[in-house]
Formats: sequence, structure tokens, C-alpha cells
Amino acid sequence: MTNKKNMNTFSHVPPGFRFHPTDEELVDYYLRKKINSRTIELDVIRDVDLYKIEPWDLQDLCRLGTEEQNDWYFFSHKDKKYPTGSRTNRATAAGFWKATGRDKAIYSKHELVGMRKTLVFYKGRAPNGLKSDWIMHEYRLETDENATTTQAS
Amino acid sequence: MTNKKNMNTFSHVPPGFRFHPTDEELVDYYLRKKINSRTIELDVIRDVDLYKIEPWDLQDLCRLGTEEQNDWYFFSHKDKKYPTGSRTNRATAAGFWKATGRDKAIYSKHELVGMRKTLVFYKGRAPNGLKSDWIMHEYRLETDENATTTQAS
Repeated sequence: MTNKKNMNTFSHVPPGFRFHPTDEELVDYYLRKKINSRTIELDVIRDVDLYKIEPWDLQDLCRLGTEEQNDWYFFSHKDKKYPTGSRTNRATAAGFWKATGRDKAIYSKHELVGMRKTLVFYKGRAPNGLKSDWIMHEYRLETDENATTTQAS
Repeated sequence: MTNKKNMNTFSHVPPGFRFHPTDEELVDYYLRKKINSRTIELDVIRDVDLYKIEPWDLQDLCRLGTEEQNDWYFFSHKDKKYPTGSRTNRATAAGFWKATGRDKAIYSKHELVGMRKTLVFYKGRAPNGLKSDWIMHEYRLETDENATTTQAS
């Protein structure tokens, strides 16, 4: 199981180290490597299909080690609403992710490397739905729109 | 230079990982290994002679990587005030460290493994001296009183 594999590789980090990445590290290192299918030394970012799972399932799927977590990191390809269109379908079986606020630019050494979108999970179906406490940050590279790496909390 | 060596070994931790150890990890892993002169996989805790350096020198001596730090980790042997006595001399050239509050017990799986003492740095000479913002946590094993590992902030 990939989940188990993740836990084992994570145990190679010496005691006292915690995964607290910056936006820049998530975009410019992890997301870039994921998109280019490059090897990641210690791949703590689980590949998931975000639109087939509910936010509350992420806690088990994206667990790192045995400590309590409030953030979960994962990588998912975008799901197009219509094969030919550019609108993204962010619905799951139980609800949908809805963008909120403005996207945030992410810089590395003063160079724009990516953007961060903030989304909120609503239970039910748009345009109705019950707002939840689940927040997701969706990161995208400025150079490739095909994939995103995301963090839910 | 050991300082440089520390920075190099630290770069082996993958991006996104930060050294945020718990009291238990500091005592039961790092301090125990230091005292027993065991190899530490990634030794981010610098060996210093605390009573020969001032708190503001720690920022350079105990730097990890290139990020801004507010905590510095180091290991130092205790300096006895008198060769035959058990009182500890915590004076430097510019001032002295003075204990404050109560020591905190540190447990690992419900077993007492060490204690944490909190100290404040005063400029000048006891019993006078000007209180500073420098705080130190001095960790000791419950089984060995000869050495301490400390964190200043």
C-alpha cells in the first residue's frame, strides 16, 4: 500500500524534524517535481484523485508518521468539467470545493513561480450547499496548468 | 569549521522539513546520544562551551541553514563553580544565567526521562545585573548529571 510506503519513508527523517513547507517549497520543489515525474527524495505528498474522495478521508490517506496533524498534503490532477472546456470540476460525491478570495502569487527569488488558490468545502450541491470548516490551498505552477498540489486543513 | 559542517549536513534534510523538536526528542534522543558519544544521524546540535560565549554569539555558532531562527540548539558540559562542589557556575564574561521558575519533568511513554530548567540571562555580575530577553532551556537526563543540552531563545 502506498500509504504504508509513505509512512516508512517518512521515518527516515531524523527525530525533531517536522514537515512545515513554505508556499515556495511546495510549488518550486514538490509541485515542479511531481509534474515532471522527477524522483522526490522523500515523497511526503500523496497522489490522490481529489474528486473521488471527501475532505475527511484525507486524514488517513495523507497521514505522515504518528503525530496529530492539522494539515494534509496531496497531489491531484485537475478534473475538467467538460472535455473541451477549461472550467474545472471541483465536486465530490458529498459536496464541492468553492474558491474564495483572491489567488496569491508565489515568488522564488523575486521570480513568480506559481499561484495559490484558497477553496472552501461545501456539503451538498451548488449553488446551494452547507459551508464547512475545510479549507484547501490549491497550488499551481505558472508554467503548467495541468496539475495542482494541494493542502487541506 | 564545524559550523560549516553543520550547515552542510543540515542540507541533507529534504525541502520543507524544519527542526522543531519536542522536549522528549531533545532529551531522550539527542541528549542521550550526546552523553553516550553515539553517532547522531544528522547532528544539528552544536557542541559549545556555554560559559565562554555570550547569548548573542549563539546565533552564528548554532545557525541551521539560511533561514531566520529564533531558537538555537547546543550541547554544553556543566562548569562546576568549585572543583569539589556541586554548585554550577553559569557565568559568562558579560553576565550570568539565572534559573527562574520550576523545573519541568519530561516524560517518554509515561516514564520520566529528564528535566527542563528555564534560565534568564542577566548582564553584569550577581547579585546585581540587568535582566535581558534571553531565555535558555537547560535539559538534563534523569540518569546522568554531567551534561546538559540547551536551547536559547
